[in-house]
Amino acid sequence: MDILVVNCNTSASMTEAIGRTASRVARPGTNIIPVTPYWGVSSADGFYDSFISAAAVLERLTTYPDHFDGVVLAGYGEHGREGARQLLDVPVVDITEASAMFADLVGQTFGVVTSSDIAISQVRQSLQACGLLSRCCGVRSVGLPVLDLVAAGSAGRAPFVAAARELIDQGAESIVMGCAGLTTAYEDLVRELDVPLIDGIAAAVSLCESLVHQGLRTSKVGSLGRPDLRKPRPGWAREGGRRAEFDEQPVER
Amino acid sequence: MDILVVNCNTSASMTEAIGRTASRVARPGTNIIPVTPYWGVSSADGFYDSFISAAAVLERLTTYPDHFDGVVLAGYGEHGREGARQLLDVPVVDITEASAMFADLVGQTFGVVTSSDIAISQVRQSLQACGLLSRCCGVRSVGLPVLDLVAAGSAGRAPFVAAARELIDQGAESIVMGCAGLTTAYEDLVRELDVPLIDGIAAAVSLCESLVHQGLRTSKVGSLGRPDLRKPRPGWAREGGRRAEFDEQPVER
Amino acid sequence: MDILVVNCNTSASMTEAIGRTASRVARPGTNIIPVTPYWGVSSADGFYDSFISAAAVLERLTTYPDHFDGVVLAGYGEHGREGARQLLDVPVVDITEASAMFADLVGQTFGVVTSSDIAISQVRQSLQACGLLSRCCGVRSVGLPVLDLVAAGSAGRAPFVAAARELIDQGAESIVMGCAGLTTAYEDLVRELDVPLIDGIAAAVSLCESLVHQGLRTSKVGSLGRPDLRKPRPGWAREGGRRAEFDEQPVER
Amino acid sequence: MDILVVNCNTSASMTEAIGRTASRVARPGTNIIPVTPYWGVSSADGFYDSFISAAAVLERLTTYPDHFDGVVLAGYGEHGREGARQLLDVPVVDITEASAMFADLVGQTFGVVTSSDIAISQVRQSLQACGLLSRCCGVRSVGLPVLDLVAAGSAGRAPFVAAARELIDQGAESIVMGCAGLTTAYEDLVRELDVPLIDGIAAAVSLCESLVHQGLRTSKVGSLGRPDLRKPRPGWAREGGRRAEFDEQPVER
Amino acid sequence: MDILVVNCNTSASMTEAIGRTASRVARPGTNIIPVTPYWGVSSADGFYDSFISAAAVLERLTTYPDHFDGVVLAGYGEHGREGARQLLDVPVVDITEASAMFADLVGQTFGVVTSSDIAISQVRQSLQACGLLSRCCGVRSVGLPVLDLVAAGSAGRAPFVAAARELIDQGAESIVMGCAGLTTAYEDLVRELDVPLIDGIAAAVSLCESLVHQGLRTSKVGSLGRPDLRKPRPGWAREGGRRAEFDEQPVER
Amino acid sequence: MDILVVNCNTSASMTEAIGRTASRVARPGTNIIPVTPYWGVSSADGFYDSFISAAAVLERLTTYPDHFDGVVLAGYGEHGREGARQLLDVPVVDITEASAMFADLVGQTFGVVTSSDIAISQVRQSLQACGLLSRCCGVRSVGLPVLDLVAAGSAGRAPFVAAARELIDQGAESIVMGCAGLTTAYEDLVRELDVPLIDGIAAAVSLCESLVHQGLRTSKVGSLGRPDLRKPRPGWAREGGRRAEFDEQPVER
Repeated sequence: MDILVVNCNTSASMTEAIGRTASRVARPGTNIIPVTPYWGVSSADGFYDSFISAAAVLERLTTYPDHFDGVVLAGYGEHGREGARQLLDVPVVDITEASAMFADLVGQTFGVVTSSDIAISQVRQSLQACGLLSRCCGVRSVGLPVLDLVAAGSAGRAPFVAAARELIDQGAESIVMGCAGLTTAYEDLVRELDVPLIDGIAAAVSLCESLVHQGLRTSKVGSLGRPDLRKPRPGWAREGGRRAEFDEQPVER
Repeated sequence: MDILVVNCNTSASMTEAIGRTASRVARPGTNIIPVTPYWGVSSADGFYDSFISAAAVLERLTTYPDHFDGVVLAGYGEHGREGARQLLDVPVVDITEASAMFADLVGQTFGVVTSSDIAISQVRQSLQACGLLSRCCGVRSVGLPVLDLVAAGSAGRAPFVAAARELIDQGAESIVMGCAGLTTAYEDLVRELDVPLIDGIAAAVSLCESLVHQGLRTSKVGSLGRPDLRKPRPGWAREGGRRAEFDEQPVER
Repeated sequence: MDILVVNCNTSASMTEAIGRTASRVARPGTNIIPVTPYWGVSSADGFYDSFISAAAVLERLTTYPDHFDGVVLAGYGEHGREGARQLLDVPVVDITEASAMFADLVGQTFGVVTSSDIAISQVRQSLQACGLLSRCCGVRSVGLPVLDLVAAGSAGRAPFVAAARELIDQGAESIVMGCAGLTTAYEDLVRELDVPLIDGIAAAVSLCESLVHQGLRTSKVGSLGRPDLRKPRPGWAREGGRRAEFDEQPVER
Repeated sequence: MDILVVNCNTSASMTEAIGRTASRVARPGTNIIPVTPYWGVSSADGFYDSFISAAAVLERLTTYPDHFDGVVLAGYGEHGREGARQLLDVPVVDITEASAMFADLVGQTFGVVTSSDIAISQVRQSLQACGLLSRCCGVRSVGLPVLDLVAAGSAGRAPFVAAARELIDQGAESIVMGCAGLTTAYEDLVRELDVPLIDGIAAAVSLCESLVHQGLRTSKVGSLGRPDLRKPRPGWAREGGRRAEFDEQPVER
Repeated sequence: MDILVVNCNTSASMTEAIGRTASRVARPGTNIIPVTPYWGVSSADGFYDSFISAAAVLERLTTYPDHFDGVVLAGYGEHGREGARQLLDVPVVDITEASAMFADLVGQTFGVVTSSDIAISQVRQSLQACGLLSRCCGVRSVGLPVLDLVAAGSAGRAPFVAAARELIDQGAESIVMGCAGLTTAYEDLVRELDVPLIDGIAAAVSLCESLVHQGLRTSKVGSLGRPDLRKPRPGWAREGGRRAEFDEQPVER
Repeated sequence: MDILVVNCNTSASMTEAIGRTASRVARPGTNIIPVTPYWGVSSADGFYDSFISAAAVLERLTTYPDHFDGVVLAGYGEHGREGARQLLDVPVVDITEASAMFADLVGQTFGVVTSSDIAISQVRQSLQACGLLSRCCGVRSVGLPVLDLVAAGSAGRAPFVAAARELIDQGAESIVMGCAGLTTAYEDLVRELDVPLIDGIAAAVSLCESLVHQGLRTSKVGSLGRPDLRKPRPGWAREGGRRAEFDEQPVER
């Protein structure tokens, strides 16, 4: 099966890292297709970026030319989840809810460690919207914007571990990595913690495979029913896609 | 004071209707500036459209060239609220939360009548996100997409009144008009109901004036802190704005 | 328009201070009428005082002889709100909910700084009753009963600022002044904090003006329907009012 | 032990009926002292009456001249509970919460049948304030103000049973009598229903006896700490009490 | 009346201690019958033990040969409550909910001090299931498994008092003893605290007496309707009971 | 990998049916091991049966002699989940939460169709305990105990479909099969409904495979830490297991 794994930002290196994790955890027979939006944000920090990335991701999905069987939305805490589900019939899994689900399966409470304080309210809102906030016992940040956190590499691990331990002291029985850019650090971080650590990319790929495998598709009765695609949407998803509009390449950091 | 009243969709007639209501309710000295996004959706029905409109509205605000003292977001149930607040220092008021606040002030419970079923979950999510769901006792639709509801004119009023009365029978003590396009029907609808009817446009303009008047601006400490505008956002809010990108005019219906 | 601004206690100096704030924030054309109950409490600290003040305020409103277009209830966290709404058709706005509404409009979470610990549970109950507790991230006190806090004048500001900063450290993005008596300190306090500070008097006057301006009145269908005023209420709101009963003047502190 | 059973209204016949139930259910050694407020409402229907009755009851308790070991507040859904607890050290039990507690002990969900629609929101607010709303699956009224319901006598039972059955159809596993005036009909009503029926008077007397028996008194640390009784409360609980103020006798209906 | 007080574990000394408390608080005419399960756990620490004890207690109740008028389940936080209610018509009171109810009656918030961290989530879940979590402001442990806590005797009191004081500092207005084994320490602990201390055994015995006294029995309409006892339950509650199966005596510690 | 799929009841035919579904949905390389408790209930209807089954399942897991990599608990709405997690390090997935998670991934709200009314409260409690109740918009029964529902075969489908359609009319966007015994009817039922239908067995097997695949094991820090297995548990999980105790074979229906 073909699964699109859509980075929420335009940083090609992050798409690549996400794709590597996805490919590593995918089952035999799953073809991971990493996707970068054509426009948007080089990283998503807070609500403003999140809404930009949501539209960029939705446009990428609207104009995606080839076959796919499912979608993973790889932006932790980012918007757009329900929009992608409305657009598509195939399953759409967001790393925010996927990681919370696995956290719920391995502990009675979970904590989230995210990038900067600006993301905390957004993360809580996303968990509340998908009905998974009640067992979250805290969201803490390492105090670095996404790009800085990713750039910090191994230097970013110490504040992550410190924040995770504070959450554990407050009762968290598992920890969720609240930033897709941390996926490359998973192996290092998991060794430092004595509670389960959840990587949303792995979690979402697995759930997406599972939905496809079970033949479950998004409900088209009710709030996720197909949008009327004949209705005018000026400047949206135009003939030829938006790629042509931008002479910039996807940003590299 | 100058207040931008931003339609969430590209239908110029709807912007005009919204602007008329806003101007009618504005206090002396308030200058209402109706704004249409350069691109987006001709109407917002459900999550997919909502996320498109959120980005289009945010881009319009990001590149808006002139002075303004406050913003009204005139899409009922639409996304983007917290993004606009993060972007700007001046007050931003969304008609969804504004109307719920006034509903709370005149009754112990309120009901929302919206356009089509596809919007119901989105409306509930928006009210939950802004902390105002607990006194909402129901969301019902008239079963028409926004453009059809607006086009129906006076023919759309009967199903609105019927839905409102069902909500009142279930305990709603006031009714919120859950679609900005209904604003022109306010005078007719209010006569049909024996409970207060809230028009989000009027509610939001009034709250926005009030925030400016009190000197209250959006908190920049925490989750609504200014986005880093030097960070690359490829294809976003480019030099010259997006207007040039689209040869289409804003859609007229 | 004429707006009654009803102090919840009998301290004339507090009524005067509240009236000054109300007059300062009122729009041109708004006539602020400060009102003191004829009997009750010299200050309201906790549930016992709150219920006394509620009845005293309601009796004052029941027997108020002259015209008014709206009412502001100026006791932070005090009871009576829904009773006044039931009694009257004109809008009634309580400073507790008004300030929470403006706090919600300028930040994702708010904290309340109130007078003494005895008020904390009452404040939370009032916010819960009006459906606005979910975004309150904490209520803290400065540890002084209302009269002492007011008497402390500028000496009371330091503990207020300290409590506010603790709330901000815990994630509060705006601060609500949880005591009407603090209104005179607003200008000083706002300078000390880097988040929005909400004064309930200003907030409520503005909302009340707005309700009158929009023509919104309290719903008379359901739980706020007019009380049967012909039913015997012995000793309540008697002929000639209660003024005559008390030879004391309103308490001055 | 001496237990004051305080009617929330001034109708002597209702005090007497409440006292009869209380005496019937009291244990040997318990002395029931029925108490009528000196002023207030002949019946409490809705928020306005409820706040009046709260102050009248609190004043009665403040000036009560003789010894008592505990208090039952016998107004269903009425305010004042936390105020009486703050005033007194001895236990105070309100029939609203007492009946919900017993309902919780005999079924997974309960329904409340109250007098008129005007009381519904108030009942829900009272249950929410005491933390017992989550297992209430509905509040319905028989559509009669309290005095009419009491006057109806056996004619009032049919609508009560009808409302109770609707609640049972919706999943209520027990029914709470949401009006103290119904206490005389208990024996008749219980025969008509195949689920447990809870009379708040019986429930509260029993809990009050139990608190006294266990030596539990109200916490004086925190929000229920004793009010400062030296603080001026003009016109409140004056020398000689209020009895002298009213030449009317408690209203009889 | 005869009340079974069922220890959740097999430790005879704990049954005896529980029985002593129950007898001490029982009213004249109440006959306390302490009961030990025939099999199960020597103490219940956490979910695993709790589910074992639930079945052992239910089997003991299913095969109990003699008359009884009510049941007290004396395991704090343990499962089985709703199962016993379904099995029996007579009242069943669990010490977890009983103590929370009395805590609610004497303070606005309560804290629970339990044995070890492993119990915290279970306690919260039990309170949530019976609808009494909302006024619990914290659950803390003394860090000792039940048997060690009981064995510690007076040495266990210092950590209890320390944990209770932390909860009081955080706003708890009363404290619940979150372990039945602490019942013998009640008199010592109550002296150390300046807020009410609730012993679930006393609370539950009193509520059970009260239910019997009021003639209230468990609802048999809905989720607590009698189980079909003719349905095969292999190995369950067999002829002769399970006593014969175990040559061990109930464990003594 | 080896996954135990544990029936909650002793009906061998139901174990077999559950095992067939599990094997059908399992990935290549997954070895499904259907397991029947040695004792317990021939079917689990309501709380009483549920607690019996929980202990029987836990004892079966405690004494299971061979290797396994994960566990699926195949009783819808049954207790024991957290106990099995505490006992084991390998992942444990309960069909109740697994099906709710997949329902959340394909629709904004879900409804549950269960066997008889007696199960409704238990289902809600189980969803609340695992934090997944907030998006459940209703639980309805077909009005048949489990064994009758299974025996009804195709005749049981009509009431299932009717109940599902009522839930869809009330806003359910997907339907969960709230009884493991329905698993054989999945193919027929899915054809009748135009919303996704979730079979908990398939859902849980898939999640369990996924947890094993990701290397996630249950947190042993906090409430799911290993029980002290040296502590006396008289009559529990004895040498030789319990199989020898029962001459009955697992019940066949």
